[in-house]
Amino acid sequence: MTKPVIYSFIDFKPEQQAQFRKIAPDYELVLASEQPEIPSQELAIVIGWRKDRAAEILAAPNLAWVQSISAGVDYLPLAEFAQRHILVSNGSGIHVNVISEHVLGVMLGRSRGLFAYQKDQAQQQWLPGSVPLTDLNDEKLLIFGAGHIGQTLAKRASALGITVYGVNTAGESRPGFQKMYTQETVGPAIKAATTIVNIMPLTPTTKYYFNRDFFAKMNPQASFINVGRGASVKTTDLVAALQAKQLAFAALDVFESEPLANTSPLWQMANVLITPHIAGQVPHFRQKLLQIVAPNLTSFVQEQQLTVNEIKPGHFY
Amino acid sequence: MTKPVIYSFIDFKPEQQAQFRKIAPDYELVLASEQPEIPSQELAIVIGWRKDRAAEILAAPNLAWVQSISAGVDYLPLAEFAQRHILVSNGSGIHVNVISEHVLGVMLGRSRGLFAYQKDQAQQQWLPGSVPLTDLNDEKLLIFGAGHIGQTLAKRASALGITVYGVNTAGESRPGFQKMYTQETVGPAIKAATTIVNIMPLTPTTKYYFNRDFFAKMNPQASFINVGRGASVKTTDLVAALQAKQLAFAALDVFESEPLANTSPLWQMANVLITPHIAGQVPHFRQKLLQIVAPNLTSFVQEQQLTVNEIKPGHFY
Repeated sequence: MTKPVIYSFIDFKPEQQAQFRKIAPDYELVLASEQPEIPSQELAIVIGWRKDRAAEILAAPNLAWVQSISAGVDYLPLAEFAQRHILVSNGSGIHVNVISEHVLGVMLGRSRGLFAYQKDQAQQQWLPGSVPLTDLNDEKLLIFGAGHIGQTLAKRASALGITVYGVNTAGESRPGFQKMYTQETVGPAIKAATTIVNIMPLTPTTKYYFNRDFFAKMNPQASFINVGRGASVKTTDLVAALQAKQLAFAALDVFESEPLANTSPLWQMANVLITPHIAGQVPHFRQKLLQIVAPNLTSFVQEQQLTVNEIKPGHFY
Repeated sequence: MTKPVIYSFIDFKPEQQAQFRKIAPDYELVLASEQPEIPSQELAIVIGWRKDRAAEILAAPNLAWVQSISAGVDYLPLAEFAQRHILVSNGSGIHVNVISEHVLGVMLGRSRGLFAYQKDQAQQQWLPGSVPLTDLNDEKLLIFGAGHIGQTLAKRASALGITVYGVNTAGESRPGFQKMYTQETVGPAIKAATTIVNIMPLTPTTKYYFNRDFFAKMNPQASFINVGRGASVKTTDLVAALQAKQLAFAALDVFESEPLANTSPLWQMANVLITPHIAGQVPHFRQKLLQIVAPNLTSFVQEQQLTVNEIKPGHFY
């Protein structure tokens, strides 16, 4: 009799693979990089996801658990999972530190003129005073999304003297935030903010939330940073708002379509910083992922349940 | 009888000038921008400094106090001041927040790949994974100079999860630093550091301290950041060390000679970030300076003494 398979899109190292065998000796770990074909009949568990392989994965009759590596799970077929009682867990926690560091790096790079001066350097220009510099004490940061990442960012930003406001579904208070709003009450805070960050998951409610109406409310000196999902932003509206100087700067790590098309006007806009969806890239990634996978695998083989980061049907985050 | 003159190279605003008149009604405030000629006979107090006007200033027989705007006072004729009993005070405190923010911005810009990805953007290149990204939790920051700025930087860096070590004259412990060294004991810490920052004042002991021998001790993955004084670094040795990959990155805000010469190889080096001596640029500068000048002026007119940031003869900082 063949063993049920754990099919992993992540290349765990040999010593990490040994952990799988120890926890689940009755399962076989198969790395996608070593065996491209998915063993449909035996497939029980998938680690990671590939949109272009979704049909193959879903064809497996005994698929029981999908462990994603990201915090957002909008790209997974959650409705089908729910209907087939396939368990789902996400990678929440893995990217918390680095995403908050990306946001702070962008804020400091702008407030201290580092991005602008790097461009002067490329032209061999010595132009002190050409960039208006600011002090973090004057920053009002408004964070859309107050989950694990938002709270870590809020705590660290506060430690640097930044005043932090947040938006979540119920407007409930969260540690590190001076004040919380809902999407209904946040209007005046949008106007007051010097930096606005999107870390919301992509849901029907957040799709194109950052659109023409939103950007029109912003302070013309302010920055917009997207480290959430690309489709939360209506890109054409953002481009128009930047051109109309309704905001002063945008740092975008995620896009409606990736890679960002060569024809996008964003590439060459002076007040835009583009990063290629790397805000969540983390050193020791596989080791961090194992801290979620190992306890989940333990409880899964023992009682077909997950203990860490389970996404229950009907909850997107 | 003509009033003694306070000659200021800083353009205080009208309402700020009113403060001078209130505190020192028997003195006349003269702005250099409005009256280029220095009233030699009446000159009592100078605010700010201009190296190219030093001879004129020193020719004033009754000069009694020089208030500098920087923390470092290496460029002032301190020996002559001491001999003539001219009081000196510096601007320590004004730049504390922004210089520590500059350093953190550089560290985050490097650790999260923002500087490298900005260069990719200019070429319309979408290259996720092209830059190895790190996490601040893995950073070991070694700060040369543990005064006002160094301590603020240490405190903020610690709040971001960075481990912070420091160097001062006596190796005495300072808040925010995990461990302190002296220039004699710091050797192993140079090797272990992932980022080394210079914030030391320029003195005979610190001139060319960062030279060939120093860079040879560094970790080849590490960064060097200079926000202190240009002449603490032997530039030719730094260029050679970067070319020999003895260190991975340098962010330089100050230089042996400023502006940096067009012929300097630093301009076009891929692993160098040049900023034009702006790390200390601060919003609301005049207001912050007045918080030092006002109490000093009060005590000066009453008892010819200074109360804030006095530099005593024999101490450079």
